[in-house]
Amino acid sequence: MYYAVIFTSTRTEIEEGYVEMAIKMVELAKEQPGFLGMESARNEIGITVSYWESLEAIKSWKANTEHLLAQEKGKSTWYKNYKVRIAKVEREYEF
Amino acid sequence: MYYAVIFTSTRTEIEEGYVEMAIKMVELAKEQPGFLGMESARNEIGITVSYWESLEAIKSWKANTEHLLAQEKGKSTWYKNYKVRIAKVEREYEF
Repeated sequence: MYYAVIFTSTRTEIEEGYVEMAIKMVELAKEQPGFLGMESARNEIGITVSYWESLEAIKSWKANTEHLLAQEKGKSTWYKNYKVRIAKVEREYEF
Repeated sequence: MYYAVIFTSTRTEIEEGYVEMAIKMVELAKEQPGFLGMESARNEIGITVSYWESLEAIKSWKANTEHLLAQEKGKSTWYKNYKVRIAKVEREYEF
């Protein structure tokens, strides 16, 4: 049993610094305790789903100092809007 | 409280029929009882997240006859691989 953080967003036109920060945040997330993985795609909207061992791990990541700065910059500069959903994965199957 | 179905996939090179079927499935999903919404993005991988009122609604959608045909065709033709995660949304916030 684990958790998914579903981050959906629409971007502003402002590109400056965005890709660098996105890469930095992926690297930083990977170092967090309880991090299990991350998947991203974007065209009209962006969807990033990250996977975590526990709600505590998600809370720690949300409160990470560098991540907080990225969140602020995201709101002021890169994102028109975003939505975060925290969900408990109850079953899964694959092909 | 509601559920998210996180569908991540990688596509084959085969385009024929894919877009038409994808559009048809979105239209069909919208008609299902308990359907709340759907968001998609694709570049290297595709991520589609659909939202549902209950596990029963998800089960019915999975078992829908036209959807079953699309799933078969997806496995035989359009997808290299995919993964489905069913998750209970426990909290959310937005900007």
